[in-house]
Amino acid sequence: MRSSSGLRADDSAMADVDALVAAARAGDARAIGKLISLVEDDDDAVPAALQALGASRGEIPYVLGITGPPGAGKSTTTSALIAHWRAAGKRVAVLAVDPSSPFTGGALLGDRVRMQAHFTDTSVFIRSMASRGHLGGLSAATPQAVRVLESCGFDVVLVETVGVGQAEVDIAAMADTTVVLLAPGMGDGVQAAKAGILEVADILAVNKADRDGADDTIRELRHMLTTVSDREPGQWRPPVVRTVATAEGGVAELVEAIDKHRAWLSSSDEGGRRKLARAAHEIAVLANGLLTQRFGLQVGDPRLIALAERVVAGKLDIHSAAREIVGDLE
Amino acid sequence: MRSSSGLRADDSAMADVDALVAAARAGDARAIGKLISLVEDDDDAVPAALQALGASRGEIPYVLGITGPPGAGKSTTTSALIAHWRAAGKRVAVLAVDPSSPFTGGALLGDRVRMQAHFTDTSVFIRSMASRGHLGGLSAATPQAVRVLESCGFDVVLVETVGVGQAEVDIAAMADTTVVLLAPGMGDGVQAAKAGILEVADILAVNKADRDGADDTIRELRHMLTTVSDREPGQWRPPVVRTVATAEGGVAELVEAIDKHRAWLSSSDEGGRRKLARAAHEIAVLANGLLTQRFGLQVGDPRLIALAERVVAGKLDIHSAAREIVGDLE
Repeated sequence: MRSSSGLRADDSAMADVDALVAAARAGDARAIGKLISLVEDDDDAVPAALQALGASRGEIPYVLGITGPPGAGKSTTTSALIAHWRAAGKRVAVLAVDPSSPFTGGALLGDRVRMQAHFTDTSVFIRSMASRGHLGGLSAATPQAVRVLESCGFDVVLVETVGVGQAEVDIAAMADTTVVLLAPGMGDGVQAAKAGILEVADILAVNKADRDGADDTIRELRHMLTTVSDREPGQWRPPVVRTVATAEGGVAELVEAIDKHRAWLSSSDEGGRRKLARAAHEIAVLANGLLTQRFGLQVGDPRLIALAERVVAGKLDIHSAAREIVGDLE
Repeated sequence: MRSSSGLRADDSAMADVDALVAAARAGDARAIGKLISLVEDDDDAVPAALQALGASRGEIPYVLGITGPPGAGKSTTTSALIAHWRAAGKRVAVLAVDPSSPFTGGALLGDRVRMQAHFTDTSVFIRSMASRGHLGGLSAATPQAVRVLESCGFDVVLVETVGVGQAEVDIAAMADTTVVLLAPGMGDGVQAAKAGILEVADILAVNKADRDGADDTIRELRHMLTTVSDREPGQWRPPVVRTVATAEGGVAELVEAIDKHRAWLSSSDEGGRRKLARAAHEIAVLANGLLTQRFGLQVGDPRLIALAERVVAGKLDIHSAAREIVGDLE
């Protein structure tokens, strides 16, 4: 919470937020950036203001998640997708979530330079976010930032994050379509399955498909998909597409797969189901953040340290310590 | 919680656990495995029983964390370290944590075959754990499983997990020494820093050091360490070592670095500080799990879904929904 009451922003903050929201919706990139900073600081005036707007808007924009291990070419692919959508006249927003240091909270912008061709395009908004904190996985602020962008009239919101494991699961929980990007030779099929990517991916893309080993990787992924998933008729079957994101036109197959998945979402119950699951996940993450604050579960909390000292001294067991923190809630 | 009361195991379960603990401490691998299954199921009779034992033991064994991206050679390196410690007469336990599917909870054992040379050695215990759940990052059961192994008289507990980002942070929070394993060409320095590895790593190991690009990777990591960290005298400076885990003797430099770090922990305040931080982290994770249960933050909770439906319909904002779940705690 940013406000001093710890729960509600005061009226003047509310008025500021309303002015920011108005400017952001008029296309002011600095206002959009400011709103995202506010939700990163957990200011709850923003979602309230957005919700008031959201309730009066009919359409919810499309959220595309892109994830995969470091070096797979996520930024280059993102840049190619931006170019595609811009050519089609769409407004595009990108949130690049860096699962970076919990100690500094800093997001390095190094590979954002790969997207710099789009920095002067006012219909493209690009923002890096650090994923901070510990117990909440991907930043709790990310879905809120997606909502900010949704409310500002972007047609597509693209969320990009590095990661195997938790980050992918988190991104799948907030995206309409999740693309997992791999590169040849970055880990065999067992590794891929270990990371759970076959279950979170709506589309698997093997990037750098002009490199040695690409055919093997694609064949193996397709084989695993046939054996792992025994899908019902009408269900989505994740395609494995090949991309060369550095080459002009190399993302055509990926764009086609994305469009197909989006059409399938609209024609099935799955689209609505995902919106619901996304909202539930978002509520749970925020509630978890509130509980973490209220119960002093942050690193360095004095009560937590005092209990840890008793555990280290052998005077208390871990479960009793946890129960002491949670207290008598029932 | 496994017990029907939701909070306390009954007396007969306690007695079973005591018998299991006795067998496990006598070296019965099946009993050790059963205890770990119990803590995976969140049975709080186990930590209580362990604490009773722990309070009467003077020595806490050494926990080594090994992490890094898929394909870096973690299992092969782990196997080489086991061989080294076994030759020195130590009892070694390995927890291989798979950040696998949140949907199936299943851990694939594919690459465990690389450790199979040690499966028939009764002084070596190897166990795969799935990291389940969502809001807790790495499995909440992992530190409990480490405690089980600590109590069973192993000299070294090695925790191995794939991951960039969250899993690395989690492993650093529970290990005395954290080794981050990289391979040449798996991502440049910016990617490494993005994932926060420079801040969690006590030792950086570039594996497959006989491959092209190893010298570049090592040079770059060393350069980044000098620029990123401006350490006080007496502080630990993470070394960058080169390994070839598939070759006999290729881990000598890594073992030397591990021994040096261990000696430094004992000679500085850092060893005690880490034990305390580890206990605090463990309490926070368990308390978070209790809160997640009590407040119905699990995927599919009916109250959570009902609130999500109101959010999707535009009748409620996300923060109000989260506050409704947390309720009036103050």
